[in-house]
Amino acid sequence: MPHGYNGRILRINLSKMEIKTEEPEELIYRKYLGGGGLASYYLLKEMGKGIDPLSPENILIFSTSVICGTLCGGASRFTVAAKSPLTGGFGEAEAGGWWGPELKFAGYDAIIIKGAAKHPVYLWIHDEKAEIRDAKSLWGMVSGEAQLAIRKELADDRVKIAMIGPGGEHLVKYACVINDLRHVNGRTGMGAVMGSKYLKAIAVRGTKKLEVYDQAMVKGTARWVAENYEKQPGSLHDLGTARNILPLNQRGILPTRNFLKGQFEKAEGISGEMMKETILTGRGTCYACPIRCKREVRTEGEDYVAQEYGGPEYETIASFGSLCEVGDLNVISKAHELCQKYTLDTISTGVTIAFAMECYENGLIDGKDTDGIDLHFGDGQAMLAMIKKIAYREGLGNVLAEGVKSAALKIGKGSEKYAQHVKGQEIPLHEPRGKTGLGLAYALSPTGADHNEAPHDPIFEMPGKWLSSIAPLGILEPIESLDLGPQKVRLFVYLQQLFNLYNSIGLCNLVGIPFGPLSLDRLVNYVRAVTGWDTSLWELLKVGERAGGMARTFNIREGFGPADDNLPERFFSPLTNGSMEGARIDPDEFKKAIQNYYQMVGWDPVTGIPIQSKAEELGIGWIKDVI
Amino acid sequence: MPHGYNGRILRINLSKMEIKTEEPEELIYRKYLGGGGLASYYLLKEMGKGIDPLSPENILIFSTSVICGTLCGGASRFTVAAKSPLTGGFGEAEAGGWWGPELKFAGYDAIIIKGAAKHPVYLWIHDEKAEIRDAKSLWGMVSGEAQLAIRKELADDRVKIAMIGPGGEHLVKYACVINDLRHVNGRTGMGAVMGSKYLKAIAVRGTKKLEVYDQAMVKGTARWVAENYEKQPGSLHDLGTARNILPLNQRGILPTRNFLKGQFEKAEGISGEMMKETILTGRGTCYACPIRCKREVRTEGEDYVAQEYGGPEYETIASFGSLCEVGDLNVISKAHELCQKYTLDTISTGVTIAFAMECYENGLIDGKDTDGIDLHFGDGQAMLAMIKKIAYREGLGNVLAEGVKSAALKIGKGSEKYAQHVKGQEIPLHEPRGKTGLGLAYALSPTGADHNEAPHDPIFEMPGKWLSSIAPLGILEPIESLDLGPQKVRLFVYLQQLFNLYNSIGLCNLVGIPFGPLSLDRLVNYVRAVTGWDTSLWELLKVGERAGGMARTFNIREGFGPADDNLPERFFSPLTNGSMEGARIDPDEFKKAIQNYYQMVGWDPVTGIPIQSKAEELGIGWIKDVI
Repeated sequence: MPHGYNGRILRINLSKMEIKTEEPEELIYRKYLGGGGLASYYLLKEMGKGIDPLSPENILIFSTSVICGTLCGGASRFTVAAKSPLTGGFGEAEAGGWWGPELKFAGYDAIIIKGAAKHPVYLWIHDEKAEIRDAKSLWGMVSGEAQLAIRKELADDRVKIAMIGPGGEHLVKYACVINDLRHVNGRTGMGAVMGSKYLKAIAVRGTKKLEVYDQAMVKGTARWVAENYEKQPGSLHDLGTARNILPLNQRGILPTRNFLKGQFEKAEGISGEMMKETILTGRGTCYACPIRCKREVRTEGEDYVAQEYGGPEYETIASFGSLCEVGDLNVISKAHELCQKYTLDTISTGVTIAFAMECYENGLIDGKDTDGIDLHFGDGQAMLAMIKKIAYREGLGNVLAEGVKSAALKIGKGSEKYAQHVKGQEIPLHEPRGKTGLGLAYALSPTGADHNEAPHDPIFEMPGKWLSSIAPLGILEPIESLDLGPQKVRLFVYLQQLFNLYNSIGLCNLVGIPFGPLSLDRLVNYVRAVTGWDTSLWELLKVGERAGGMARTFNIREGFGPADDNLPERFFSPLTNGSMEGARIDPDEFKKAIQNYYQMVGWDPVTGIPIQSKAEELGIGWIKDVI
Repeated sequence: MPHGYNGRILRINLSKMEIKTEEPEELIYRKYLGGGGLASYYLLKEMGKGIDPLSPENILIFSTSVICGTLCGGASRFTVAAKSPLTGGFGEAEAGGWWGPELKFAGYDAIIIKGAAKHPVYLWIHDEKAEIRDAKSLWGMVSGEAQLAIRKELADDRVKIAMIGPGGEHLVKYACVINDLRHVNGRTGMGAVMGSKYLKAIAVRGTKKLEVYDQAMVKGTARWVAENYEKQPGSLHDLGTARNILPLNQRGILPTRNFLKGQFEKAEGISGEMMKETILTGRGTCYACPIRCKREVRTEGEDYVAQEYGGPEYETIASFGSLCEVGDLNVISKAHELCQKYTLDTISTGVTIAFAMECYENGLIDGKDTDGIDLHFGDGQAMLAMIKKIAYREGLGNVLAEGVKSAALKIGKGSEKYAQHVKGQEIPLHEPRGKTGLGLAYALSPTGADHNEAPHDPIFEMPGKWLSSIAPLGILEPIESLDLGPQKVRLFVYLQQLFNLYNSIGLCNLVGIPFGPLSLDRLVNYVRAVTGWDTSLWELLKVGERAGGMARTFNIREGFGPADDNLPERFFSPLTNGSMEGARIDPDEFKKAIQNYYQMVGWDPVTGIPIQSKAEELGIGWIKDVI
């Protein structure tokens, strides 16, 4: 194939029931790549300031990337982006699976959806054709039912479907988008935006073969990943992301009891090892990925869960397990299945229930509020009941469906101190008091607390002299996990740019370094092989920095400022048990680190706004028209 | 060879006649590489503020690099650095040839010279041994004589010698250092610093074979360069850098009559083509370089020049030719030979004489001042006579030996407007009114106006879609040569970092892109092959940015500030002839561009001082102790 990349974007206006196709100039792809980068470009260019995220004015974007659907493991991810109903700021969430590649095979890189339908609809996109179809009969169905029905209607079992269940339909502010019943664009409430547009699902099917510039190189890299991911016991393949439960518990930083504690006495019972011994029935994966980190589980009895929804990953286990002090994998798996059916983000759901539990334990709410549910920490059945109430906005569920920030405002009585969030988004299950770079990630992510907007465990030791995967970034000296000095901030800045790159190019961060095998050099060569562009690590990291600058601009336009770049009070207070007992983040050091960050990335130290010259340096000088 | 780089630095104290050897940790080499980067590290760390550049307190550093002396064409260069007696700020000048590689073969990466001898000495460095030898009998000799004498004394004709002639001995502020009588560390008066230390020469000879990590890759790159440099008529090989004379003249930007004009009616007579047809006798080169861009010339008659001193390059031809309106290549070649003998920088010498000519034409000086020399523009013999007077500081030569800035202060009568310099260093022979990025380069170079501190003709058109050699920097859209907007500044920032990298790694900028064949990708792979480091373009460009930050810091310490980042008034006035007649730089646009630059590189917009957080990001947080 000749040098270059030609892409196509599908434009849907649900208010006008209009479908158009657009072919952006190649420069757009090279500057923004796809995913969050491409999406934020269109959100800034085409959406006005201050719109209601659940109104037809919101723009919902599904965005793959220039490498999505090619052969390398991990190159399967796509972004859903819009103004977030949870935070009121930049909304973005990634998912793997097969849906993204299938959209590419159907001939499109991205879908930009404007307006709102007057009744439930779904999109059917197949081989360069698209249509808007009636979905009245699907509305109200949980995800599994809806998938069956759509596939039956289209008479094709291989159709890939991204969709919402009742959580999205009821506009739960942290409703997710699910594809293949297992792969989830989890954070920032993109499912609620879908619901607000009466868009039940997007079904895709394509048979186009993706052309690449250098097929041999593409195949070679794919083969290399297949041969070089880790297969030993305790690996991602063997135990999934749940392999982290026991090590984090031992280090005293497994979030427990709504982040009061760092160690959970029942950790073994919810570990990846325990899952493997008991309920694990298979290992799932994403398009072309040899790692197979996904879980399939089945439980028996009262909490029976069906295998079709996959199994819980680390975040889900910790949020419904240690954070709510529930030590039973069967119950956690059931909670996971419910969230997949209803399409609720498991992180926000678990953190919100832990918040409610702490309110309940401290008498801020009681049985009257919970319709009789005894919402104590450790009560698995109470937790499961509450998940359903959230999805359908029943009783207290209607309050909790707004997320912890809004719920605390509603409940009052000082409940904010139990609400663990940044910018309105609930904190993921990684403890910043044990890894301070993560605190920066939470405070500075444009989507609010988010573990996929920056690395969730910055490298704190160098495994062998300059043989670390991040040495090509010039990070050559060890940095302590509890450090908050300028060198930690620098590390964070570089890794955040890297993760912004991953989220723009649609690469799984369990395949790319520092967590996965694909080195920076191999990634650069892979992008070259797919596109024929003579690109470099320099240029690609600048794409990441550019994406970060655009997302920040989005938030500035919506009124966010330096005061929002902070952590909940709890993380400035000591952990109350375990091997890190007493550990806290020093608030002055943290403020200083945030200031260092602003200056390193070229944001005004007082306003937090990207300096215009810096924006010009990133090739996005046009953001001045947005701010 | 195993992964890694082990280097050695020779430390000489001439006051104490002491010699020591130091082995810096590998991190120093990876962060600073060599050349200007390594030198500025030691200058900042070991030299105090405000010292007299010609006192024993100045530190003189000869610095090769991690790749210097390996097989790739262009990897031959080394830096001489010190506080500049010409500018009072950061002094740095690079040269090619064989001397740098020979120092590596003798076992050393760099020489750090402190103090001053009590009488003339020279250094003799051979196979990991070094000695300080008497040079009383050499003092006063022109370079050619001194080289003969040293080689005879050491009984080895293959000894490589970097040295000074009478210009350095007489502390001419722009005296250069010459090696092999042809290769010159020209700018910022490093020869005067040598003279002030009574150091006549450094003779080196080594037989060590340099070890590299991946010999096959190193050889492969060297072979690739040999096979891919351009050999067609009009190439660097064919015509040398003088190939630029006619195209620049045609574009109306060949500096003429002390930068009043952009076109010289006798340009053909001083062109590379004319040289080839008349006086060219051979093509010289540097260690391992297949391009052979260097000239060898011989003239007959009155202005007879000996072949041993090589021949004039573009800068020399334009400074003694068009700038002084001398249209005779024989005279220019003689001027060149004199400068090589006396060790005077041909750029500063030519510009200084053009300044004196303009003063003379306007009656600010007359025959009494010049000892009867009729110093009109176009008078070649007057120019030759003046060169000798400068080298020996005779009469007006003693005034001009201080450089145009000091000379104008001495002469007064409004002569500053004829003094074309930035920060006290004379403007090279490239016309910023025809290529505005060059104006930024002159204004912002830490050494004062210098064409090797930044690219002298930023790319203004893209030769084919994204096939430009700078596309890997993300420069994907054409930028007009006369533009001064943010995209031009961005281009300049990136290319300046690249040139700072070249000056630190000792790569000739006629081999590296954008002027030469060695792509950024090949360069990165070459550094990997030599060192075994898993480096990247990202990391290497950060070395360049780091070097720029350190040089800036040096100047800040010496009292330079934003007012010094400017151009002489002449460039804000119109060119007075030729195809660019009337062209001028808009001073407001220029100021705006400088402000954009400060903010893009992370300098305080008011003070011009690198922001501490930015310094931390570059891994040079320690500069706060310097400022």
